[in-house]
Parts: sequence; C-alpha cells; structure tokens
Amino acid sequence: MTALKLVGASAHKLWGGRFAGESAPELDALNRSIGVDFRLWPFDVKLSKAWAIALWSAGVVTVEESLALEHGLDRVADRLRAGAQPNASDEDVHTLIDRLLHEEVGDVASKLHTGRSRNDQVATATRLWSMDAVGVLDTAVRELQMVMLAHAESLSAASVLMPAYTHMQRAQPVSAAHWMLSHFWPLDRDRARLASAGRAAAVLPLGSGAVAGCAFPISRVLLQGSLGFAQLSLNSIDAVSDRDFVAELLFTLSMLAIHLSRVAEDLIIYGTSEFGFIQFGDSFTTGSSMMPQKRNPDALELARGSGGRLLGDLTALLATLKGLPSGYNKDLQDDKRALFDAVDTMMLVLPGVAGALSEITFRADKMKAALSSSMMATDLADYLVGKGTTFRDAHAAVGSLIRQSEETGVELHAMPYKTFKTAHASFGPDVFDALSAVASVERRETEGGTGPLAMKAQMKSAWASLA
Amino acid sequence: MTALKLVGASAHKLWGGRFAGESAPELDALNRSIGVDFRLWPFDVKLSKAWAIALWSAGVVTVEESLALEHGLDRVADRLRAGAQPNASDEDVHTLIDRLLHEEVGDVASKLHTGRSRNDQVATATRLWSMDAVGVLDTAVRELQMVMLAHAESLSAASVLMPAYTHMQRAQPVSAAHWMLSHFWPLDRDRARLASAGRAAAVLPLGSGAVAGCAFPISRVLLQGSLGFAQLSLNSIDAVSDRDFVAELLFTLSMLAIHLSRVAEDLIIYGTSEFGFIQFGDSFTTGSSMMPQKRNPDALELARGSGGRLLGDLTALLATLKGLPSGYNKDLQDDKRALFDAVDTMMLVLPGVAGALSEITFRADKMKAALSSSMMATDLADYLVGKGTTFRDAHAAVGSLIRQSEETGVELHAMPYKTFKTAHASFGPDVFDALSAVASVERRETEGGTGPLAMKAQMKSAWASLA
Amino acid sequence: MTALKLVGASAHKLWGGRFAGESAPELDALNRSIGVDFRLWPFDVKLSKAWAIALWSAGVVTVEESLALEHGLDRVADRLRAGAQPNASDEDVHTLIDRLLHEEVGDVASKLHTGRSRNDQVATATRLWSMDAVGVLDTAVRELQMVMLAHAESLSAASVLMPAYTHMQRAQPVSAAHWMLSHFWPLDRDRARLASAGRAAAVLPLGSGAVAGCAFPISRVLLQGSLGFAQLSLNSIDAVSDRDFVAELLFTLSMLAIHLSRVAEDLIIYGTSEFGFIQFGDSFTTGSSMMPQKRNPDALELARGSGGRLLGDLTALLATLKGLPSGYNKDLQDDKRALFDAVDTMMLVLPGVAGALSEITFRADKMKAALSSSMMATDLADYLVGKGTTFRDAHAAVGSLIRQSEETGVELHAMPYKTFKTAHASFGPDVFDALSAVASVERRETEGGTGPLAMKAQMKSAWASLA
Amino acid sequence: MTALKLVGASAHKLWGGRFAGESAPELDALNRSIGVDFRLWPFDVKLSKAWAIALWSAGVVTVEESLALEHGLDRVADRLRAGAQPNASDEDVHTLIDRLLHEEVGDVASKLHTGRSRNDQVATATRLWSMDAVGVLDTAVRELQMVMLAHAESLSAASVLMPAYTHMQRAQPVSAAHWMLSHFWPLDRDRARLASAGRAAAVLPLGSGAVAGCAFPISRVLLQGSLGFAQLSLNSIDAVSDRDFVAELLFTLSMLAIHLSRVAEDLIIYGTSEFGFIQFGDSFTTGSSMMPQKRNPDALELARGSGGRLLGDLTALLATLKGLPSGYNKDLQDDKRALFDAVDTMMLVLPGVAGALSEITFRADKMKAALSSSMMATDLADYLVGKGTTFRDAHAAVGSLIRQSEETGVELHAMPYKTFKTAHASFGPDVFDALSAVASVERRETEGGTGPLAMKAQMKSAWASLA
Repeated sequence: MTALKLVGASAHKLWGGRFAGESAPELDALNRSIGVDFRLWPFDVKLSKAWAIALWSAGVVTVEESLALEHGLDRVADRLRAGAQPNASDEDVHTLIDRLLHEEVGDVASKLHTGRSRNDQVATATRLWSMDAVGVLDTAVRELQMVMLAHAESLSAASVLMPAYTHMQRAQPVSAAHWMLSHFWPLDRDRARLASAGRAAAVLPLGSGAVAGCAFPISRVLLQGSLGFAQLSLNSIDAVSDRDFVAELLFTLSMLAIHLSRVAEDLIIYGTSEFGFIQFGDSFTTGSSMMPQKRNPDALELARGSGGRLLGDLTALLATLKGLPSGYNKDLQDDKRALFDAVDTMMLVLPGVAGALSEITFRADKMKAALSSSMMATDLADYLVGKGTTFRDAHAAVGSLIRQSEETGVELHAMPYKTFKTAHASFGPDVFDALSAVASVERRETEGGTGPLAMKAQMKSAWASLA
Repeated sequence: MTALKLVGASAHKLWGGRFAGESAPELDALNRSIGVDFRLWPFDVKLSKAWAIALWSAGVVTVEESLALEHGLDRVADRLRAGAQPNASDEDVHTLIDRLLHEEVGDVASKLHTGRSRNDQVATATRLWSMDAVGVLDTAVRELQMVMLAHAESLSAASVLMPAYTHMQRAQPVSAAHWMLSHFWPLDRDRARLASAGRAAAVLPLGSGAVAGCAFPISRVLLQGSLGFAQLSLNSIDAVSDRDFVAELLFTLSMLAIHLSRVAEDLIIYGTSEFGFIQFGDSFTTGSSMMPQKRNPDALELARGSGGRLLGDLTALLATLKGLPSGYNKDLQDDKRALFDAVDTMMLVLPGVAGALSEITFRADKMKAALSSSMMATDLADYLVGKGTTFRDAHAAVGSLIRQSEETGVELHAMPYKTFKTAHASFGPDVFDALSAVASVERRETEGGTGPLAMKAQMKSAWASLA
Repeated sequence: MTALKLVGASAHKLWGGRFAGESAPELDALNRSIGVDFRLWPFDVKLSKAWAIALWSAGVVTVEESLALEHGLDRVADRLRAGAQPNASDEDVHTLIDRLLHEEVGDVASKLHTGRSRNDQVATATRLWSMDAVGVLDTAVRELQMVMLAHAESLSAASVLMPAYTHMQRAQPVSAAHWMLSHFWPLDRDRARLASAGRAAAVLPLGSGAVAGCAFPISRVLLQGSLGFAQLSLNSIDAVSDRDFVAELLFTLSMLAIHLSRVAEDLIIYGTSEFGFIQFGDSFTTGSSMMPQKRNPDALELARGSGGRLLGDLTALLATLKGLPSGYNKDLQDDKRALFDAVDTMMLVLPGVAGALSEITFRADKMKAALSSSMMATDLADYLVGKGTTFRDAHAAVGSLIRQSEETGVELHAMPYKTFKTAHASFGPDVFDALSAVASVERRETEGGTGPLAMKAQMKSAWASLA
Repeated sequence: MTALKLVGASAHKLWGGRFAGESAPELDALNRSIGVDFRLWPFDVKLSKAWAIALWSAGVVTVEESLALEHGLDRVADRLRAGAQPNASDEDVHTLIDRLLHEEVGDVASKLHTGRSRNDQVATATRLWSMDAVGVLDTAVRELQMVMLAHAESLSAASVLMPAYTHMQRAQPVSAAHWMLSHFWPLDRDRARLASAGRAAAVLPLGSGAVAGCAFPISRVLLQGSLGFAQLSLNSIDAVSDRDFVAELLFTLSMLAIHLSRVAEDLIIYGTSEFGFIQFGDSFTTGSSMMPQKRNPDALELARGSGGRLLGDLTALLATLKGLPSGYNKDLQDDKRALFDAVDTMMLVLPGVAGALSEITFRADKMKAALSSSMMATDLADYLVGKGTTFRDAHAAVGSLIRQSEETGVELHAMPYKTFKTAHASFGPDVFDALSAVASVERRETEGGTGPLAMKAQMKSAWASLA
C-alpha cells in the first residue's frame, strides 16, 4: 500500500519516519487516484464503521473510542454528502476520509488503522460498490426487457409477420414478436451472469491486513454479517490481490454490451429508408447541423459502439492481471477505472436503448411487403417431403423453381401450376397453400418456434423470467 | 447455412438447383472449416442418431428408416474412429458425415436433413463438445490443486516460513503453505466458473431449424433428455446465433490462464539464483543449445504466456460477435477455432504446470534467511499499540528505527535496547520477542490468516473443496 | 533457448551432460513448436548457409567444412522441398534441420552451432519470413484495389449515382464510383503500413548469440548483405527479445481486416433484397442445406469476422509481451502462432473479397430510385445561403419543409412552389433545380468531393498509387 | 452529425424545423461528449479561423464578415483560456464554441457553418490535437532515453558488469551499460513510430462536408497550408470516417507502454532485497500505511500496469471500428476517449519512469557477486572449440562439469585443474582465464555485443539518435 498523507495542508505522512526525502510531484500526479476512487466514499465509511465496532469487540479500542469513531464517520459522510471535496494532499479516498475524520474526532482517528491496511480496505470497498452496482444494473436491464416484452405483446396481438434473416438474406417468415424476443433472452442470460458476478463480489477480504492476515482478534464473521457479505475470503494473500470479481463483472457487461450492439444493429438496419420496418421517434434521435432532413439513431449507434468500449475495459484489466506476482501490486490500482467506466457506460446506454426502442413505430405493412414468396421455399420442400420425396430431391426441385423465378422475374406464387408439376410430379394443386407466409409460420409450433402457440408459451416464459 | 456437398468425387450439392455457376476455389478455401471442426464428429453422430429417432417419433420417417440411419451412423462412427479422413469435397464435418452416411445407407441418408439445418446442428454439436470439455478441464485443474495441496501439507508439517511480498518488497513473514494455498483458491474459483460455463452450454438448440423453428412435430424434450441437456432453448432465432456459452468458456479459461501466469511468475522469480527459494527439477525444465549451465523453466514461461494467448482467443470471439445482425451469420463459424485453441492450450499447460510444480524442491533455509527483522516492523508497531500508543505514533517511531537500521546497516534485532527506548518510551525489554518471525506468524489467527490454527482450518477447507 | 534434441530415434540432447533426468512427455508436448514453426525451414536453411560462410570468414571453420555445411544444407532443403517430415524427436524447425544436416554431413554439422544460439536464429528466421510475407500481402491487397478501381471506372463511365449514408440514413447523393473509392484509400494506407512493417522486420539479429553477443569475429555486415537486411540490430539483449516487428505486422493486418470488414458490411447491406443495390454472383456465394432460395455472401461475412480474429491475434501478442523481463523468455515462442494465423487468414480473405467483389453486379436503377428528394435538403439550404440567408435560417426553413413532406407524404420535388415560398421568402422558381441529384453531385468539386472533375482527379491518384 | 444546440438557456437547435418533439434527457446524457472533447477547443478555434478565411476567399462571406468571425473566435479563445466553462446545453466543443461566438459576434456566427459539417470539423480538430500530442510525447520519451543514456555512461565508465538473464536464469556476464541500453533502443523504435503516427494524422479532412464534399469553391490547399497539414484527404466519404490515425497512435502508445512495462519489470525485480542490484530513491517510492519498513516502487508498478490499460484503449477503438458501414457513424464519437486516455496515461507514466530511474542507485558489488562462474560455461565451451573440439562435444564436456559443480557445491573456478582435464583432454592450464567474467565480456566485440569497443560504438549510436 502507498503513502497515507494526513490532516490538512502540511500533508504529514503516516510513514514519515522512514523516508528522508519528499515524494516527487511527478509521482504524486501518477499515483493519485482520488479522481477515480472518490465515489467509493459511502462504502469506505460503511466498512470503517464496521471496523470501529470490530476493534472494540476485539478489545483494541474502548467503547467510547469506538463510538467516537462511528459518530465521526457519520459526520464525515454528512460532509461528503453535502459536497465536501478532496484537497490537493488527498491521494485517494481513504486518505481523504482519514483527514476528515481527524478533523472531526482528533487523534483517536489514528486508531482506526489498527490491524487493517489499505490493501484489504480498498478490496472491501470495491466489492461493496460492485454488489450495489449489480442491483442497479439488473433493474436497468429488466426495464429494457419490459420494453421488448411490451412490443412483443403488441406485435403478437396484431399478428405482425416479418422476414427472419440469416446472412442478412431473407430466410423464412416469422412473427415479429418472435424477432423481438430473440433479443430478450440474451438479456436474460446477462441478468443471470450479473447475479453470479454479484455473488463473486460478496466475499469479504477485510481482516486480511496488508497480506498476512490480522494480528488482532477481530471477528470477521461479525464484519461479514454487518456488511452483507455472503462469504469470508479464505486466504489473506489471495484476498488482497484477487480481482476475479471485477473481471467477472467486466465480462458480464461486455456480453451485455455486445447483445445491445446486436439489437442496435438490427434496429439501425430496419430503420433505413430501404428497409423501413421501423420508424424512429424524435426523443432519441438527433438532426444534423448540415443536412436538414436527417434523423439519426445516435442512441443506438452509441450502444453499438459500447460493445467495443467494454471489450477494451475487459482487456485492460485482464492484461494488467496477467503475470503479476503474488500479493498486492500497485498495478491493481487501475481496476477501478475500468470497472467504473464499464458500469457508467452501461448505465447511460441501457436507458438510451430502452428509450429509443420504446418510441419506435413498427410498420407492419413494410414488413409484410418484404415476405416474398421465395421465402417459402423451405415450406415448398417440406410439402414434397410430406408427399414422400426425400428432402434432397425436394430441395433440388424447389431450387430449380427459384432459378426460373429469378430468371423470369415472376414470383413463385404467380407461376402457373404446370410449372410446379414440371419441376416435380408430386406437386398437387394445393401447392399454393404452402406459399402462404401465415401458413408457414403456423407450422412452426415446436418449443421455441415461431408458431402462434409456441409464441404464447414463449411469452409466458418471458413474463415469468421478469417476475 | 452454406453449401452441403455430397457423395464422392463429383461433389453434388444439395443446393445445386438454384445455382448456375460453380463456386470458386478461393471461396472453397476460405469457407472450408473441416480442418477445424473435424473433431466434432462424435457429437455430430450422437445428435444425428437422436434426430433419426425424433424423426421417427414425429412420423417423418418409418421405424425401418430410422433404424437404418442409426446403424449407418454407428458404422460412420466406426470408420472415423478407425481413421477415416475427409476428402477434398468435404467442406465441414456435417458434409463429411453426410457423405459417409450416404455411402453406408444410400438415399435414405437424405431424409436425415428433414426439419433440421446446419445452423441448429452445429450449435448443438459445439455445445455437446463444450459440455464434455468442461469435465476434462475440471479434472486437470483439480490435479493441479492436488499438487498444491500436497506441497502445502509438507510445508506446513515442516513449519516452513517465508516472506510474503507486496510490491515485490518483503512485507511480512508467512507460512510457506499459506503462500502455496494463495494459488489454490483462484483455481477453486475457476472450477466454479467452469461448472457455470458447463451449465450455460447445456441448453439444446436442436429443433430450431435454420432460424424459424421446426415445421415437423419433433419432440425437443425427448432430444434434450437423450442428449443430456439441462434446458431447451426458448427462441429459435436466438438459438442459432447464441454464442454466449463459448464466450463464457473462453472467459473462464482466460481467468484460469491468468491465474496460472501468476503461479508461474512467482515460481520463475523464486527459482532465480538470487531468490533460490525453490529448485526446479529436470523433467520440466530444458537446457540451452549454447549455454551448458542453463536449466530453464520453459513449462512455467509457456504457462505465463498462455495468459496472453487466451486473452487473444476471448477478444477474437467477442469482437466477432459485436454488432452482428440477428440470426445466423457466417462470421460465427470462427467461434470454434477460438474455442478449440483455448481448450487445447489449457490441456497442454495444466499438466505442464502441475508437473513442473510437483518436482520443485523448496529450500526452507533460503526462505528463512530472507526473513530480515525489518519485516517485523508491523509487529513492532502493533507492540506499541498494545501499550496504548496510537497506530500512527507507533508507525512513526518504528519508521525512525528502520531508517537508523538502513543508515547503520545494523538489523533491528541486533540493535541495543536503548535505541528502541529512545525511539519510543513505551518499548520494554520484551521488544525483541516482537521481532521473531515465528511469533509474528503465530499472531495472525483470524480466518484466512497465516497463523497455525488458521492454516489448519484453511487446509481443511481446501480438502473439502476437492472432495 | 531450449533443448536441442538430436539425430534420430534416441534423441541425444546437445545439453545431456548437465541433466540427470529425462524430460517429461507433458513438457515435450507443451514445448514442441514444430507444428507451428516448420514453415520457417526455407529461411532457417538460408540463414544457416550464410552463417556457415561467416564462420569460415571468421576462421572458425575451414573452407572445406564451410562448403560441406552449405552443400549439406542444400540437400536438407531438397529433402524438405520433396516432403521430408519431422519425426517425434524434433521439437522445432531448428532441431529438425540440425538432425537432417547430421544425416547429410555427419559431425561437422555440430560446428554450425558455434557462436550462435536458437535465440538469434529464430528471430532472424522469423524476420526473413515476415519480409517475404509483406511482399505477398502487398500483391494481394493491390489486386483487391484493382478490382475496386475497375468497378469505379465502370460506374463512373455510366455516371451511376447512389445515396451516401451517414448513421445509415440517406445523407447526400454521390457518384457510386466515389463510394467504391472510399474503400480504396484505406487499403492504400494499409499498403503503406505493410511497407513500414517490412522495414521494421529488416533488422538483422543474427550474431547476437543467446543474449550477450558473439565471441567469434563474425562479420555481421556481411550477413546483413547476404541475407537482404536493411540494418543491423544494435544491442544483443534487445535483439533476441525484440518482437516489435511482429506486433507492427499484426497491427497492420488488423487494420486491413477492419477495412475489409467495412467493405463487407457495406456490400452485405447493399446486397439485401431491401436495398438491392448489388447482386451477388454464384462463385462466391453459397446456398443453404435447408432453404433452397438462399444465396449467402459467405466470403464477405468471413471477411467481416476476420476483423475480430486478427484483433485477437494482435491482443494475444501484446498481452504476452507486456511485463516480460529482459532477454529471451520462452513466452515469446507463441509469437509465430499469432503471426502465421494472421497472415494465413488474410491470404484467404483477400482473394475471397476480391473474388466476391469482382463478380458483383451493380443495379444503377435501384440506386437511382433511392435518391429521394429530401436528400437534397442541404442543397436547398445552400440555395438559400446563395440568396444571402444565414445557414442557420436556411436550415430551419428547409427543416420545416421536410417536416411537411413527412406529414403529408409528398416528396419535396412534388410540392407546389408556393409551399417553398411560404417556408422562406427567398425561394425563387429555380428552387426545383436545387432538388436534382445530378446537380447536387456536380456542385461538389472541391478536392476529394464527388463532383465529376474531382472524381476524375481522384481516379488519377488511385491509378498512380498502384503504379 | 448530430444536434447542434445554440445560444444560451433555451437551447435553440439548428435543426429545430424538422423535429416535432424534444430530445429525451437520457439521450442528452448519453450523447453529450463535452466532458471528453472540451480540450479540443484550441484546435477547433484554429480551424474555424482558417475556415472563416476560406469562406471569404470562396466568396461566401464578405471580408468584413470573415474578419468579424476571426476576431470573434480570438475573443472566444481568450474566454476559454481564462476559464470559461460549458453550460448544460453544450453537447460538445463545437456547440460550445458556436454559442460563445454568437455571444461575441451575433448572427454572423451562423455563417461559419456554411459548407462544413461537424463530421469534417471534428476529424480535423482531432488530427490537429494528435499532431500536437505526438511532439509532446516525443519529448517525454526522449527525456527518458536521456536518463538511460546517462546511467549507461556512468556504468560504462565504472566498468560495471552484471548477469544477463534468459528465462530469468543467469545466462552470461554483460556490461551493465549494455543492459541499460537494451531498454533504450525499443524507445527509439517507439519514437520512429510516433513520427509515423504524426504523419498519418497530418492529412486534412476539412472541406469534406458531411460526407459528399463541399459545394462551395473552398481552397483546401490553402487550408492545408495554413493549418500545417502535409496532405489533403482524397475522398470525402473516407475522410469523415477514417480513424486509422487514431489507431496508429494508440498502437504506438501501446508498444511504448509495453516497453515501459519491461523496463519496470526488470527494475522491480532488480530492486528486490534478494537481487539487490539497485536501490530505489525516496522521491518515486512510497511507504505503507501498515508496514513501516516498506519502500514501494509505485511508479514502476503503475508503468507496468499501463501496458494493460493502453492495450485496452487500442482494443476498444479497433473493436468499435470493425464492421462499421461507410460514412460517419456515431460509434466513432468514442475514439477521442480512448485517444485522450492513452496520451494522458503516457504523459503521467513517462515522467514517472524517468524520475524513478534517475534516482536509482546501482549496486556494482551486488551485481558482481551475482556473476557465478557457471555463467562462463559458454566461454568454457568456446575455449574447447578454439582447441578444435566441435561445439557439441564441448557443450557435453562443460555440461558434465556443471553437474559436478551442482552436486558438490564447488563453483567451477574453485575446482582443481585435473577435474577439467578429466572432463575433456583439451583443457589446458589456461582454462581458468576462460572463467573470468571480464574476459568473457571482452570477447564479445561484434556489433551489438557487450564488449568494450562494441559498447563504445553503441553508445555513440545512442547519442546520435537523440541528436
């Protein structure tokens, strides 16, 4: 752990005795993390209060000292809540709180450092912050899922069909609600991962000291309970250098950002003039300073871009951890920058996507118009399979019809019956039924399919997942 | 989905009807994935057999046809097990098996493609492969943990102490077993993540068709049971393009590789002539073509490097997924290259680290010699705290002693009592007890600390985690 | 450098004397790099021949020995060219060549190792390989540029216009050739970077020994000249661990892959049924095993995906290098896997994109139909600016017209003159001229603009860059 | 480009006419980039002044208007230099300057937007900023090189030797100056790449408009000259979406950070108590809040960690660019965050490393003590080669000596002559000369070697590179 500077302008150091020289301004500039970690203050105050009680129960401080520390920390929190700011000598949030606590309660503040180190302290505060962030993120993801589910309900009620694409080529007709929900389930997996990342964070390092454990009879079980952790860390060396929980959260948010980038890509493409499947609203688009006609889906583009940004945060942390020797190393300081950037970005992007999606208008007419009859080619092949043909022969026969359609410009449903008969003898006059998009959709009733009953079941599962 | 080429030298395509021209050799070279996905064959055979039964129960094929397909697939598996190799017209493992199946059972082989697509097929096969890999990986990690635990037992039995480092500077004395176990627990977290990645893989996509679901009354529940999946996918569009499970496994393996890189870094440094804490064995080190005296810890260096390689695999997949539109896109084909590379690498690295670690000799004498008395500075400060000094004053007094020690070159334990007394009036003649490394370690008995009882409890937890 | 195993089945080691035990099979499996580095053989042979001469000129071997080594190496090359394969005891390409050379010339082969190490040897071979690869890659990029330029010429000759997009929203009309060339220039920058990466590779490390330099009076200047390097490395420690040149090439190829991903994304979108701006050919697309109507742009999708893959290779190397101590470390062995994967991928993707692009048909009718008159909104505003209005007022007036157009469904060019006059008094009857896409394009004649003269100049620059 | 909001509290928008609704606060929060791009103001002012002149020379504004704009922009710059801050309605730096300019000169400010767009404007400003940053970075790298060179001079003057390591095992003795300079040359390559990144930035996009070029007869050549660019962009679509120059700078800085991480790793290891080769000073180390004896090399650890952070920035940008369609997309907005973070980090880390290195004390005694005679094993083998033995036999003989030394604990130089004679008949009584570290170093006089003359030449090259 690094220099703890104290109490006011002269910046006395807790470690003054051992050092002959002053630290260089270039080092202070590089080392100073208060710009990043200031936001940890509520959690540092919380764990410090718990520590004050633990010191009392371990017989290290008197009950009066413990109470003085607690009340002092409350007043520090009041000042910070009211806007108190770091000064130039506060290198990090722990130093800041220590300085303020000295101002509030005097020398007894120094007793709070007994048996703990900034190594276990910062790990604990970062974990508390993460546990809190997971809850906030879960709510924001859930709200986006609600918007999707509401759209799915409307689209389903109106029986809106659209093309499903593979390779961006029209593949098969599906219920538009089915497409909408295809973006719902990835978010469900994200929420499961968020919960898992929350559990990974909920392991208490406090009581691990700098690296070797605590020499005072602190009750870590008591600390765990009062601070809301699910488990105790089992090895003090690991405890002060374990950043797996940050990595898990960053990975979880990267996946979330990637899922949002895929929603965004679909919406941006469907919102082009050429597709026209959706119309953007006014509140989540912007105009152009040069081109008066523009309505740009900025929120969606920024969501798409956030996939890159989050991957950058994840990469930064993992590359930093790689090859580090045992115990705390200062390299770890940068974990918080990546973590906060990722969470902040997602907390801007999630409401942006939810808002943009909520004000989108679906154009059922445009979607329907895109259901060209060649998309029912698979159904046509299935029709022949139903008449006893192997799928391979069926595929070949339908392939030849498609080719004729392309060459003549006549859509399948507009071709005369005898063309079908020529392509394959098993085609009967009911072949035109197989070319209906509605019928195609209705045939796909296996679980997870786009048929009406399967959709109903899927929607029910979706509601259940939000309950 | 891409071209399915068939049966022997002339490479008939399932999709020949629609295409006028031949595909270009440059496309075939780029598209061909058999070099990567060949290893999926046992899983593709397995799911194909389950599909043959499902087609029968759905009334699509007769019981005789279903049996013919099953037995044919068994013979295909026999041939592949015996070394059958792809030919130039097999673009991927599915095409290869289709060709071989045609050779075994003739035209009925074509019926196997009814209602399924390579989109749901490859997703299913990759998930089966991943579920299998997770088990193999877990065993390999567990074996490394066993090596660590065995070392920890020996070191603990021999009461070996060593310096714990922070910032690579000597920090406090710890039990060497404590240090060893500090690398055990990260692996325990890795195993928990492996299990979670296994659960993420165990969601069945088969029955999702190309994108819209299956038009035949296939029982997906039956498929799920017979193939050993825990859940059904709930949306066919999502099912064919969801690669979250691959990403989770890659992330899990990246974390594992990073943990191994940290083990390796410690061992490489402790194995230098300057540290000398450990001696490498002969089986997992190599010599030099130029320098006859060298014994190089190659296995550990490659383990450290694998942290970078795995991060590359993870990055490759995530960047590929980012911004993809809905449904299957060919970009996804590359998921398997990253997945297989990561698993293969770990299956080489894990035994390498386990082997290298198992033949290491610990030099208790060198470790003990490194326990300079200045490492007991915290204990000295704690001593003063015990006499009623605030930690801050104690820190300052000890700091001044350290500075004198540095300037005079006299170690703390060799200083006269009066020097202590001058530094702080509360020092009594029992101060020298506080300078004992053994005593320092024994004082750290909080959970997760390095004290003997805490170590016993930690070791017990470690055994329990392997049970 | 690691174990050099020798001559045939019994695998004598050059370093046998110092080691009591055998190396473990798990280590051999992990360590063995011949599967990756085998392809370096032509370059290892080349540098070994140069070294044989250098040893002679330094007086270390006789002229007869030197000639024996040279001719022996030629025969080794012949055997490898004819298909000779590594055996189980060849851990890497250097060991393989050493074994073969012993088979050809007997004991004198051992003399070739005098004064060199695998550390400087592998660095030199990898640099030679990279210098060669740069040339091959440059040609492949250039061929793709030729395809682009040919299309640009045709599109320009036919005066084809299309919408330019920003935010995927129709922005302004441009020459289709202008769009095509917007993908040409990024490749030009890639070629400049390729040349720069080639120069970074062309620094000779041979003669640096294992780490401290060479103790024999080798002429490195002679080696440099005969091997075609531009410079000598200046510090032997740096020389054996410098992988900057690999990183530069990987970065260069990542940028190239990213540019190709952007070409691919445009083409995939323009090739949808909804856009219809282009039609894919048959040679670089594939069909579907399930959907007979599909024509999937696989080559383009794989090109897009390669952006992720290459970023993975780059990340793998950089994360491996980060934090490595001085001198050669075994972690560096993995540099070649990343390098070869990146180059191989690009050498598949570049012809794939060139082929796919070359057979694309442009649909000028569809592009023209997409030039809605609202895209001339900027021109309309510029018209008002020409009449003395500030751009801000002009923008507002045109914005209100656009809004009316959206609400009424009447396109701008179909609105009556009085609507314009109401929106802004400065509109004259010549306003309709400003709504012409052709006129809009013709007005943009600044350098780099889409006007006809500017296009002519741009095309001339493009040809010049390929000359 | 997106919404340009104007003049004061009511936030009139340039694009008000077309939009019915207000933009949502969630969008504004997500979209707002002023927190990041504020620092571009000097460059936005500069290019705006050049644009004002260009508009006059194109006949778009009068000379009086042009002068009014210029002087207004000067006053805007004065206000910003004096501390003027954005208000809540300023979404980005361009909007801010536009608002301030309106306050200074009134409505004529609107004329400045004629013919340009924020797309070409932001690209130009970012390039100007980058060109400036390259110069500042070069100076900072150069200063670190100076520190290295100064150390090398002292170490060389004092003929200090130390072990060179490969695989972190003692390899061969080298001049300590040689080791120091092994970190100098990577920085030299970084400076060459910085210069190249500067050239990549120096291509002017201004005059490209939003995407299609500029419709007014602006002289881009004039703009290029007055703004100090080396070239004109050749295609307006490419110009507004080309971020290659940012990627190049980020790659360059990643390499730099990786080089610094390697310097830092060496110094951290050499600064351990066990190595003891160097002693850290007081100004660039910190103490511990818990352990009074600690002196932690924070600056070096943060430098090592910065390798991860910069890789994250690079990854973020590349992953964002991958797969983007043509033309400007809002995803690009995030380029500046990555760029500024990378440059800022390096501008903190470079002085930190330079400072930490400059105050380091080298312990020649400790280095010398580490030169165990087994490190001369290669020299011993070379000795035998000099007597006509093949290197392979020599290696084996020396290997057996090393093994005896290990088993008996007797160092090579302390072994009796007959032991050598037994190992190989060619050993003569002068064998002990070959065991001298000084002699070993003196033999390595090839270019780039560690011998005294080679070092002198190397140092001369180093000075030349800084000249």
